[in-house]
Amino acid sequence: MAATRRRGTGTNQEAVRRHNLATLLGHVHHSGGVSRAQLTERMGLNRSTIGDLVRELDELAVVSQSVPEAGLHPRAGAGRPSLDVNPDPDSVFVLAVQLGVDSMDVARVGLGGGVLERISRPTPSDRDPEVVVDVVVEMLRQLLRSAEPGSRLVGIAAAVPGVVNDATGLVRFAPNLGWSDVSFSPLLASRIGLRVPVRLGNDAELGALAEHIRGAGRHKSHLIFLSCDVGVGGGVIVEGLPMRGASGYAGEVGHQRFDNGGARCRCGNTGCWETEIGSHAVAAAVGCPDDEIDRLPEYLQPGTRVPPELRRLGRSLGVGLGGLVNVFNPEVVILGGVLRWVFPLVRDDVLDALDAWALEAPAREAQIVLPWLGGDSVIVGAAELAFTDLLADPVGVLARAEGALSTVMGA
Amino acid sequence: MAATRRRGTGTNQEAVRRHNLATLLGHVHHSGGVSRAQLTERMGLNRSTIGDLVRELDELAVVSQSVPEAGLHPRAGAGRPSLDVNPDPDSVFVLAVQLGVDSMDVARVGLGGGVLERISRPTPSDRDPEVVVDVVVEMLRQLLRSAEPGSRLVGIAAAVPGVVNDATGLVRFAPNLGWSDVSFSPLLASRIGLRVPVRLGNDAELGALAEHIRGAGRHKSHLIFLSCDVGVGGGVIVEGLPMRGASGYAGEVGHQRFDNGGARCRCGNTGCWETEIGSHAVAAAVGCPDDEIDRLPEYLQPGTRVPPELRRLGRSLGVGLGGLVNVFNPEVVILGGVLRWVFPLVRDDVLDALDAWALEAPAREAQIVLPWLGGDSVIVGAAELAFTDLLADPVGVLARAEGALSTVMGA
Repeated sequence: MAATRRRGTGTNQEAVRRHNLATLLGHVHHSGGVSRAQLTERMGLNRSTIGDLVRELDELAVVSQSVPEAGLHPRAGAGRPSLDVNPDPDSVFVLAVQLGVDSMDVARVGLGGGVLERISRPTPSDRDPEVVVDVVVEMLRQLLRSAEPGSRLVGIAAAVPGVVNDATGLVRFAPNLGWSDVSFSPLLASRIGLRVPVRLGNDAELGALAEHIRGAGRHKSHLIFLSCDVGVGGGVIVEGLPMRGASGYAGEVGHQRFDNGGARCRCGNTGCWETEIGSHAVAAAVGCPDDEIDRLPEYLQPGTRVPPELRRLGRSLGVGLGGLVNVFNPEVVILGGVLRWVFPLVRDDVLDALDAWALEAPAREAQIVLPWLGGDSVIVGAAELAFTDLLADPVGVLARAEGALSTVMGA
Repeated sequence: MAATRRRGTGTNQEAVRRHNLATLLGHVHHSGGVSRAQLTERMGLNRSTIGDLVRELDELAVVSQSVPEAGLHPRAGAGRPSLDVNPDPDSVFVLAVQLGVDSMDVARVGLGGGVLERISRPTPSDRDPEVVVDVVVEMLRQLLRSAEPGSRLVGIAAAVPGVVNDATGLVRFAPNLGWSDVSFSPLLASRIGLRVPVRLGNDAELGALAEHIRGAGRHKSHLIFLSCDVGVGGGVIVEGLPMRGASGYAGEVGHQRFDNGGARCRCGNTGCWETEIGSHAVAAAVGCPDDEIDRLPEYLQPGTRVPPELRRLGRSLGVGLGGLVNVFNPEVVILGGVLRWVFPLVRDDVLDALDAWALEAPAREAQIVLPWLGGDSVIVGAAELAFTDLLADPVGVLARAEGALSTVMGA
């Protein structure tokens, strides 16, 4: 029926239909399930148009419809209940990669944003890009082997701790990996040999995206996600949109001078905020040897005795957060990475320092919170990036995705 | 004719016409004069619609049309030359106020953005808000007396060095004026007794706006305007729009920690960047006594011998700018206030420190420049804010503006 409707209609009407189809799929993906009545209201279209669009997505096997459980939609009123439209995670999925200094994670994420499977391995010690990519490809193939037969891969995306250029697939500078000008996406695309786009994002920016869509930043237009491990980066959402800067390099909040007499930073300078709050500083504060830094959370369990060095670090965190609050006037700041363990232990030190530092007006607005997605913010954000193309043009991307998997499954 | 067309047309068509009228007036105001052919191209409307819209604005006496001088439009081709549409600065104007710690400026600015007249006076020494407003009102009345008879005042706006809330007219916190929670706009509105809106903006934000519309930031989507006098603030444009933050307080880049062992700041903290590069630091570096700080430019004339303290200040400026470049990845950073005098003297120190500090990728994008509007950026920005309502709804605002002046002119 969709094909019949398409034939003979003008270009504009076709463009409108494709736009509506994409928008509706976005609602279903981001909400994880939504009733047809809600879609009618949110999209401002009539019931029969919504019905047609849902039917088309159903025929494409990306959504399924179900009768809602009683009581879930109390405002639906009398009459036939509105059907729920749910994303089908087993039918369409992406592969997400998170490159860390110490470990690498890959995940298979279904439509709707759920992590279906996840694998973690230590980062190869010399961090040679070719070796890293080979290991990543091996991990991704492992994920593909457990995908449902007939399910479709629609994208791959990687989160990198550094400045990247998605358009060219280039990692411009990732000091903590020791990378500069690494042509990452083309390399990964050629090694994995699948006909799906490979995209690239900064880890903090992707963390912000995920928390904005499904986490502590939902329904907030101004937020900062602080990605804090060996390196410290910021993902900033301004007016509901990622702040990318002129060429996508914005958000390097860890590389601002914090202390004239501070420590040497991996970026080459002295006294960056990163040297005060990054995971090496945390390790030093709690007496964790540098070569055991992947075990750092063990030193930061709830109830642990808090050494004065960690409280001092908490105050440096608060002072720096206060500066960011003055600069960005955010509604919420989300503390990712190792700060998920640090913040609960030194919360009062952080908030006291922040309150003393930030100007009163913006300080009153800003909540300081942990990521709702826990340790998954960045990899879920990479998955969101990988879903971008599908959500812009479901019909086109699904047409190209058919058969993409059979190539690798046969390999 | 406009009235005839209006009667009987549906609401939607009327809304479209009003939108087009406002958009066209915006083009004329921002460009300072544009041909009808260019308007046709930029707005994507046909020649006769553009002709009708221009005629309506002409009848409202806000624009005038003229035959272009030969050779100015080489691409117009053969045939009758396209008429130029020019803003009429003597017919419609706004009043702009710039409150400084040491001096206060007011200006009458005509449609098209030109400063028609400007008055400057020292800020009353105790900076009592009521006294400040009384002096400002006196200055504004002086400007009004020299306005063309029959010309229409369509708005008043003030730039303040601090965090403000335009919606409520409240100056939340201006530490260098010693103000907190001053209800500025309502006070000014009641004292001047004119039926025009009084609006309020942060000085750096308004400087950024003016440079974005008519200065060093034209056609740039990512820029920072650094307003640097006693206080240091930033106006940031992200994706072509002012970065206001959750409640309009964003941009306080001077109140980030810069040096743990630094000096006490007026905001109450220690080691803010403001203490390193603000005009008091500049005065100390060049041996200008604090009570002669309004004469600071005399100490910073081209060709002056540059003391090592000023070179050190230049390096602190460069390090801080490097941090901002890392955070915002801007296309251009515009140095306003006292930096207009400092930067030419220590340019190499600033740029060397910036290059050493900023990450290479964003550093390569960022130009560091002086404001094209010289010392007028902030007050021209205030004028742009005052023009906002006119540019959103010319017909409605002009209808209300008729007679507004007669009130005060008769007083």
